[in-house]
Amino acid sequence: MSTSTSAWPYRFSRRATTARRSLMRELMPLTTRPGLISFAGGLPAPDLFPVEDYQICLDHVLATEGRRALQYGPIYPPLKEALAHVMQWRGVDANPDDIFITNGAQQGLSVVGQLLLNPNSPVIVEQIAFTGIGQMIAERGAMPLTVATDLESGLDVDHVEYLLKLIDQVRAIIEVPDFHNPLGVSIAAESRPRLAELSQRFRTPIIEDDPYGLLRYEGANIPPLKAHDADGGIIYLGSFSKILAPGLRLGWVVAPKAALGKLTVIKESQDLETSQLAQRAVAEFIQRGLLDTHLEKLKVAYAVRRKTMLDALAREFPREAEWSKPKGGIFIWVTLPDHVNTLDLLPRAVEQEKIAFVPGFAFGIQGQGQSSLRLNFSNATPELIEEGIKRLGKIMQEAVSRPLTADTHTKERK
Amino acid sequence: MSTSTSAWPYRFSRRATTARRSLMRELMPLTTRPGLISFAGGLPAPDLFPVEDYQICLDHVLATEGRRALQYGPIYPPLKEALAHVMQWRGVDANPDDIFITNGAQQGLSVVGQLLLNPNSPVIVEQIAFTGIGQMIAERGAMPLTVATDLESGLDVDHVEYLLKLIDQVRAIIEVPDFHNPLGVSIAAESRPRLAELSQRFRTPIIEDDPYGLLRYEGANIPPLKAHDADGGIIYLGSFSKILAPGLRLGWVVAPKAALGKLTVIKESQDLETSQLAQRAVAEFIQRGLLDTHLEKLKVAYAVRRKTMLDALAREFPREAEWSKPKGGIFIWVTLPDHVNTLDLLPRAVEQEKIAFVPGFAFGIQGQGQSSLRLNFSNATPELIEEGIKRLGKIMQEAVSRPLTADTHTKERK
Repeated sequence: MSTSTSAWPYRFSRRATTARRSLMRELMPLTTRPGLISFAGGLPAPDLFPVEDYQICLDHVLATEGRRALQYGPIYPPLKEALAHVMQWRGVDANPDDIFITNGAQQGLSVVGQLLLNPNSPVIVEQIAFTGIGQMIAERGAMPLTVATDLESGLDVDHVEYLLKLIDQVRAIIEVPDFHNPLGVSIAAESRPRLAELSQRFRTPIIEDDPYGLLRYEGANIPPLKAHDADGGIIYLGSFSKILAPGLRLGWVVAPKAALGKLTVIKESQDLETSQLAQRAVAEFIQRGLLDTHLEKLKVAYAVRRKTMLDALAREFPREAEWSKPKGGIFIWVTLPDHVNTLDLLPRAVEQEKIAFVPGFAFGIQGQGQSSLRLNFSNATPELIEEGIKRLGKIMQEAVSRPLTADTHTKERK
Repeated sequence: MSTSTSAWPYRFSRRATTARRSLMRELMPLTTRPGLISFAGGLPAPDLFPVEDYQICLDHVLATEGRRALQYGPIYPPLKEALAHVMQWRGVDANPDDIFITNGAQQGLSVVGQLLLNPNSPVIVEQIAFTGIGQMIAERGAMPLTVATDLESGLDVDHVEYLLKLIDQVRAIIEVPDFHNPLGVSIAAESRPRLAELSQRFRTPIIEDDPYGLLRYEGANIPPLKAHDADGGIIYLGSFSKILAPGLRLGWVVAPKAALGKLTVIKESQDLETSQLAQRAVAEFIQRGLLDTHLEKLKVAYAVRRKTMLDALAREFPREAEWSKPKGGIFIWVTLPDHVNTLDLLPRAVEQEKIAFVPGFAFGIQGQGQSSLRLNFSNATPELIEEGIKRLGKIMQEAVSRPLTADTHTKERK
């Protein structure tokens, strides 16, 4: 049997040789220690999972069509119908035939990346972006062109236009329209038709990743970019991870017909198909109206957690700190003065105060975000949020008032 | 909203432009028409699925650890323990820490392909191979070097050695050790240590895809190549699709420690992780001893179906036909005289006799197999197998006795 030493006398591919874990994943052992109050993960609240309702749906599917649910099979048509209905909640009029099912939205990113990007393809992406987007770009060997995001008005569309004019053959624009991970911001309503029009004019498709759009706690729904799609250039990615449960691994893509056959082939080679059982149970869950009621419950609870965290930040964090005030989603982005390096603060926060967060550096496509941190507010109860922000505030107050010199900096990193 | 015409005014990647459905998938609409007796799909028998037992395991997991089962999470350690136990049944002494969980064995192929193969990497593969292997090679842009397979003794190891000596830097050997799809054959017991030794000597890892090894109906278990692994050069892929249920989308990889971290990163970018709920329910299923009893039940039933099909072939098929006599698995490979083109026969079989099969051409890595066909015996009852082979025999008798001329050939294809 394998001796399995780390010196493997065979050769890895170039892709494997350069593959690196995201910093966020590297930090997982630190941020998931027992006894911590964690604002690190992007985890939905487990105490709110609709365990009993989902179990009823699973049992129903197994009892009535168990033999089909355990077999191979094509994408389950009633799930596509149910998702066209869900897209209506976002203000998008989708045809069920344009819906493709994936093993979570990360697979949506991966297959759409394969659909659109070649090695070295220029692709427009926000400077501070979800780690999975960075990984997809790296996997394809594409070339990121980064654009700034304003904490009030979201993506800088002027900058996007400048890049599209400057650089030929940009192959995609990747955008999270609402309650961005990690920034918590949304792209301004008036920027949406403009970005869609730019995409059309420059023949550059948009990959719209929208896992949080249905989790709005304030104001009316603003339809995503997909609602402004004139010619199939906007490929929309949805996810059940935040609105139902990540452990199901279920997401969807709304794509033009021309792309669907190709996505099928790409996914076939990647993992053949998505679980029939999961597809049928989730279709049942939506058909019974359980997703509507679950979303209402989530929104009430998460709104309280968000307000608790925002109030606590105002009370406990240094005056020099700034943060986003998200109207939805599960993240707040805090920025400290430039001399503060949040990666250096993390071990102290974990060891002294038993608090975890993700350093902003983890989300910088080209290394930005060193003085920022991402705080998740969905996964801790309001009581733990109060207590945790109080303790984290102490670390931040210290860091702001005691600029690290080169010497202490070295010491801190040890 | 999208007009979704098939003329999409944007650009696909090169990968998407060249992506083609496998012929087998192209034929799906034909071979899955209602009312057919289908020997086409590689489907396990739905009437044998352990629906109730799996439901009990799911219910138990949801009732006792539902909040963890619906959350994000790392590979579930008890499933790795359970799989180390399953590997013992195959005669492989695997360390649970060397086991990686995938979304079915196709994802195992895909991530291991990314681990080992660069564009244009030479890779040794059987001339007639599982379509998913061909798709993986195409996705990586690797260069297949094909080797013949003997219907008695399996892979031609002399030919493998010849190629390894001739060509530098062959990056992998892909092999299905037992009850090969589509051939139904196994590599001879005495060839196994020899192939493992060649892999080691030439520093060329083996990708061993073993979905059928536990489905043996005759003779004692012959351990797979992995049992002869001296230095971690053999990467083993397992699947629950044929031994439990494909609708769960669960498979595993046994790999050297050096590869596991890289596989984790590759899978993260592809679909983050595999369903916690599925992992926990299947671990429960194995721990309760239900997989053992289910396998025993499958083997009894499939042995009858295999014998029924072999007997019917001997009775109904032309004397000129030859076929493999698999000791396990779910497929028989039938070869007719060279002048018979089975792709031409399929529409007639479907329309006249309501019988479906897969033409051998679908499995030829470089176009071989035109006079052969793959028959699946797991998915039809013995009664339907008798009836189906009788009807298919008529088509085959006709085809053998009436060689197609150029004219009738054209007519047939219409």
